Amino acid sequence: MPRIAIIGTGLIGASIGLRMREQSGITDLEIVGSDDSSGHLKRAEKIGAIDCGMRNPREAVQNASLVVLATPVLSMRRLMTDIAPALTSGAIVTDTGSTKAEVLTWAKSELPRTVSFIGGHPMAGKTESGPAFADASLFEDARWAIVPMANASEGSLKTIRNLVETMGATPMFMDAEEHDAYVAAISHLPLMAATALFTMVHESEAWPELSELAAGGFKDMTRLTGTEPNVAFDIAITNRTQIIHWIERYREALLGLQERLSDKDGEEEFFRYIAEAHWDYTGYRAGNVGRQEIDEKMAPIPRTEIANLFMGEALASKMRDLTAASDARVEELERKARVTRRE
Amino acid sequence: MPRIAIIGTGLIGASIGLRMREQSGITDLEIVGSDDSSGHLKRAEKIGAIDCGMRNPREAVQNASLVVLATPVLSMRRLMTDIAPALTSGAIVTDTGSTKAEVLTWAKSELPRTVSFIGGHPMAGKTESGPAFADASLFEDARWAIVPMANASEGSLKTIRNLVETMGATPMFMDAEEHDAYVAAISHLPLMAATALFTMVHESEAWPELSELAAGGFKDMTRLTGTEPNVAFDIAITNRTQIIHWIERYREALLGLQERLSDKDGEEEFFRYIAEAHWDYTGYRAGNVGRQEIDEKMAPIPRTEIANLFMGEALASKMRDLTAASDARVEELERKARVTRRE
Repeated sequence: MPRIAIIGTGLIGASIGLRMREQSGITDLEIVGSDDSSGHLKRAEKIGAIDCGMRNPREAVQNASLVVLATPVLSMRRLMTDIAPALTSGAIVTDTGSTKAEVLTWAKSELPRTVSFIGGHPMAGKTESGPAFADASLFEDARWAIVPMANASEGSLKTIRNLVETMGATPMFMDAEEHDAYVAAISHLPLMAATALFTMVHESEAWPELSELAAGGFKDMTRLTGTEPNVAFDIAITNRTQIIHWIERYREALLGLQERLSDKDGEEEFFRYIAEAHWDYTGYRAGNVGRQEIDEKMAPIPRTEIANLFMGEALASKMRDLTAASDARVEELERKARVTRRE
Repeated sequence: MPRIAIIGTGLIGASIGLRMREQSGITDLEIVGSDDSSGHLKRAEKIGAIDCGMRNPREAVQNASLVVLATPVLSMRRLMTDIAPALTSGAIVTDTGSTKAEVLTWAKSELPRTVSFIGGHPMAGKTESGPAFADASLFEDARWAIVPMANASEGSLKTIRNLVETMGATPMFMDAEEHDAYVAAISHLPLMAATALFTMVHESEAWPELSELAAGGFKDMTRLTGTEPNVAFDIAITNRTQIIHWIERYREALLGLQERLSDKDGEEEFFRYIAEAHWDYTGYRAGNVGRQEIDEKMAPIPRTEIANLFMGEALASKMRDLTAASDARVEELERKARVTRRE
């Protein structure tokens, strides 16, 4: 009877279990789970994400041909040390952690050479955590990064690719350094930027008024502050250098925007900047992602040409409004000056 | 027959019209709309947001007792100049613009003294624009800032309060400077921060890979880049000083976070920072907003005490993981050093 062990039955682990049960097509599959939290373990069993829960991860991995580590990153090293003696020779071990360089280092130092380790990272999730929010369709249409150790066999790679496709996701192969650099930009920087924004506004003296007025925009921009502190901290610590690099770049980008906004003769340029960002964003959300954008056979009209077409009229109209608006400001200032002179 | 004129029948204007029709209780109400875009005007009429559309705003405001300006901010001055001669004596004029100081300046210089101007700003919206997305429930449970001109009569204030309550929103009275400072923090800074983040990552050489990997977090943090360029530009230009102030503070907050993250002896402190942000955010999303937080009769247990209770165990466990994780890193570095020495 094929056995899979899922260590960590939170949102991700339990969602993997649910999906395996629904879509693997293996009728006699046994899914064993383990979690530090007995509440999580019971809940995962109740919803059918696992067949059986064991508190001790070493027991859970016994006779498992596939082991999925779905805990916060920093606890993985101790976990690997712990389960190493109980792993079956030839077993395949994977994980779902948000960073990969450290995880691969630990896999190399802690796991026996008789098992294959292939790192994984599903690019999907929710802010909510725990098996109560598990969902068999969580990974549908998501990308799933696969980061194999150098000695991974063809067979083990095929197994992990199968696992990812069973989840409804698309595998993307890369090495650990690439992975950590990429996710620093599109996942870890957003997490840190959201936390810094929320903390700053929350510390403001006007927070009672601000919190009452704040609507969807502020909620979107701070939502990632709701990430489990365990998960957020582990991400930050295990991808520190890359995240610092991207925070620095972001601070520069904000400074650049601030300078554009401060330049009172640069309003036309600023409108162009805003409109181009909107244009590119619209293309991105319409599915214009990946390498196909620069497929030469299908060469699209360069962005700037399309943007110029659309921007000509918009810009002219905007500059007319701006002139009219500024006139009133100038008149108001002159009026105030006259009043002051008269006083 | 009471007549309302809505100038600008985009998302906001058309949603106001729909709601008035549904909830005002005035059976013989006539809603006249005007818009630069004949497409918007036709659509608004088709969905029942207005009874009749007129291209010329000056015609639309004739005999209207209430006029709602729902266009992007910068076009409002020309609009006010345009409609001024046609406004009925005693009419009440309001707007839905995202900034208020400039709008009130224009109202003072452009509108006749026989009308009352009371600025308004519904704290609700969508990234999607246009009457096709109009929704009578758009403003339900939202706050709606009301910023009266100094000479506004009691009667006109009451009318606008009624309008806001008819929309299902809660009025919040404030002056123009307060308004612009508040929304700079919770609405305009998020808009600029999202745009800077998207533009920076989009300009990266790795954009094809990044755009493919990016998931919900990046989408949340960049969603405001989808704001209509017209609206975003007008906000930035008419609230420039306040926005620059908040971008500067945000850059400092990001530097602070970067320094915390860089401090390798400050990991305990960093965990505390992350966990407290999460704690405060959870309270905010659970509805802990406004002044009630510091009602002395209901004095809650101070945040730090609760946080400490919950943090003690989490922190201890985290520091154990961190030590174990670092050990492996040190061992790996030592192993590499031994290999290098041997070579």
